[in-house]
Amino acid sequence: MNNFQYHNPVRILFGKGQIAQLPTQIPATAKIMLTYGGGSIFKNGVYEQVKKALAGYQIVEFGGIEPNPTYETLMKAVEIARSEKIDFLLSVGGGSVLDGTKFIAAAVPYEGDTWQLVAKRAKHATALPIGAVLTLPATGSEMNYYAVISRQETQEKYGMGNPKLYPQFSILDPETTFSLPPRQIANGIADAFTHVMEQYMTYPVRATMQDRMAEAVLLTLIEEGPKMMQNPTDYDAAANIMWAATMALNGLLAAGVPTDWATHQIGHEMTALHGIDHARTLATVLPHLLEIKKDTKREKLIQYAQHVWKCTGTDDELVAAAIQKTADFYESLQIPTKASVYNVGPDSVQEIVKRFTARGMNFGERADITPQVVGQILERSIA
Amino acid sequence: MNNFQYHNPVRILFGKGQIAQLPTQIPATAKIMLTYGGGSIFKNGVYEQVKKALAGYQIVEFGGIEPNPTYETLMKAVEIARSEKIDFLLSVGGGSVLDGTKFIAAAVPYEGDTWQLVAKRAKHATALPIGAVLTLPATGSEMNYYAVISRQETQEKYGMGNPKLYPQFSILDPETTFSLPPRQIANGIADAFTHVMEQYMTYPVRATMQDRMAEAVLLTLIEEGPKMMQNPTDYDAAANIMWAATMALNGLLAAGVPTDWATHQIGHEMTALHGIDHARTLATVLPHLLEIKKDTKREKLIQYAQHVWKCTGTDDELVAAAIQKTADFYESLQIPTKASVYNVGPDSVQEIVKRFTARGMNFGERADITPQVVGQILERSIA
Repeated sequence: MNNFQYHNPVRILFGKGQIAQLPTQIPATAKIMLTYGGGSIFKNGVYEQVKKALAGYQIVEFGGIEPNPTYETLMKAVEIARSEKIDFLLSVGGGSVLDGTKFIAAAVPYEGDTWQLVAKRAKHATALPIGAVLTLPATGSEMNYYAVISRQETQEKYGMGNPKLYPQFSILDPETTFSLPPRQIANGIADAFTHVMEQYMTYPVRATMQDRMAEAVLLTLIEEGPKMMQNPTDYDAAANIMWAATMALNGLLAAGVPTDWATHQIGHEMTALHGIDHARTLATVLPHLLEIKKDTKREKLIQYAQHVWKCTGTDDELVAAAIQKTADFYESLQIPTKASVYNVGPDSVQEIVKRFTARGMNFGERADITPQVVGQILERSIA
Repeated sequence: MNNFQYHNPVRILFGKGQIAQLPTQIPATAKIMLTYGGGSIFKNGVYEQVKKALAGYQIVEFGGIEPNPTYETLMKAVEIARSEKIDFLLSVGGGSVLDGTKFIAAAVPYEGDTWQLVAKRAKHATALPIGAVLTLPATGSEMNYYAVISRQETQEKYGMGNPKLYPQFSILDPETTFSLPPRQIANGIADAFTHVMEQYMTYPVRATMQDRMAEAVLLTLIEEGPKMMQNPTDYDAAANIMWAATMALNGLLAAGVPTDWATHQIGHEMTALHGIDHARTLATVLPHLLEIKKDTKREKLIQYAQHVWKCTGTDDELVAAAIQKTADFYESLQIPTKASVYNVGPDSVQEIVKRFTARGMNFGERADITPQVVGQILERSIA
């Protein structure tokens, strides 16, 4: 097991009716910016619950934060927050709204070029306090300090992170997910699943505790995911998926083990260039990455086939089964595993390889996923 | 799944050499009381590492905190901390030292009768800040806000808890466990194992995520425990046991599920009356409790037999196997599962039943472990 530090001060309020707890979490004197996305919160009753809970608070609303939240949109919120002297940000929505809100929190008090917070992960000593009402289980943003921000102008998409960006609290009421369209439920399950794989499917360091926990999250997603897909108002299915998605990226699974994250890096480029849903890009990358890297990931692939998918057979059979089961799982959620489905062609592959080459970046737990290997992975996906 | 709140702000510094990080965690101006137990920290090099890391700090030492730390001893520390104007407590040792330190932290600024902090769980608005260097994986005290305190005078032992008593940080270096005697390693594994069972072995509420996590901790203890017993300097075995013991009682497993804790309540009385090691009392209770309560715990016993012990068979066979495997696990650690081994007799059973009757307390996830049922459980154990 590798050395690690773990610290996660986010307060989770989980379950039915928890939105009513908002006043216990936000100072009565706060001037709140309520951030949200495309407006689903007006249809599912969440907006109403939030406003009722926060009656008497000063609130400025900022809507229209898009999936893959853009710097351009968010800077409008930053200007308003500055001029309105906002001192608390309340994100109401999914991971994109929350990621965008984290950027706003960092940018409002930041005195330099705010794009550098993203592009260069510029350090910042302060941030506005953040709270979240989560309505879509997927990204895990509700219990970590990371955000992924896009810039339309340059078709770029990068991750940023700073412990100052931990939400002070996150409210997770599974009932808020009942009206999600199947596509978004599927995306959320696939996103959480891939988060676990990025932290688990590397090489063994005898971190038995972490491996068993990662498998616990995968087993939960595999057992409860199809039930939530089939019946979106199955409360317990939604609750397990919501908590599993949070556990998938709250730092526990990565503590003391190597991590990969190449699938996300490649996927971000495909979203930046083609606008493909984040989770869907991941499904077009991971199975092919596993095939290309099956020798260096061999021991973990075998363990995963046995512990998660309960496969038996020779080691070679287990490796093949592990990769096939992964692809099958995405497909079972109606999420394709070939980028060709989205008309991604050789030009895009070339552009992505060119970008990574220009940035001088290698990925993966052994830093052996070079731009050239990225090309090989994507060639398989568009074949 | 039940509603829950989860918030755990403890910073964990895990791994080799982490004691050197102490100055990054304690203000340079702090006046520290360094608390410890029977003196093992002088033999295993931990004291030296701590003193080296904290060169330049003002430190008052308080040693001699016993296993099952007593109010009598701890009040001496409270007097010294008050007169020396201590403003930071650093616990160096196992769970007993840390539990005792939590009591000191609460008691120093408390203006009322300090025993009420324990006996009545009296509320307290402040506490001294605490840090921990853990040298014995067992109690989970390093990542929670609970403590168990004994009073010699009255042969009482009670739990107390308050979010103010979260350690600010806990340093977990598995190498500090290398010189532990086998009896203490075994006790630690048994304690952590029982903590998981108290939160898992109840009735199902379809908390799939929590169930899989509880099983993850049990599987880790079962896989790595014997390895640590056999070779106490096996770093990875020690690391997994240390992290598993922390995960066993940091709040994650109990979030959203019913919990039992009757085994601990009964065990505390046996320690209070007979001075039996805490973990050893648990082993003399749990298998008999499971036998007596096998009908109300039936579904979970079956699940546990299948998922943790990989048993197959009819439901009745699985229930029997679950109970037998639990007893066998304790015995494999050289920990007896009969209280008769410790010369606990009918008089003690009567006394314990009398105490619970006087306190009007029922235990268990259904509050159906009445004093009378406690008697039945203990009768089996002394038979």
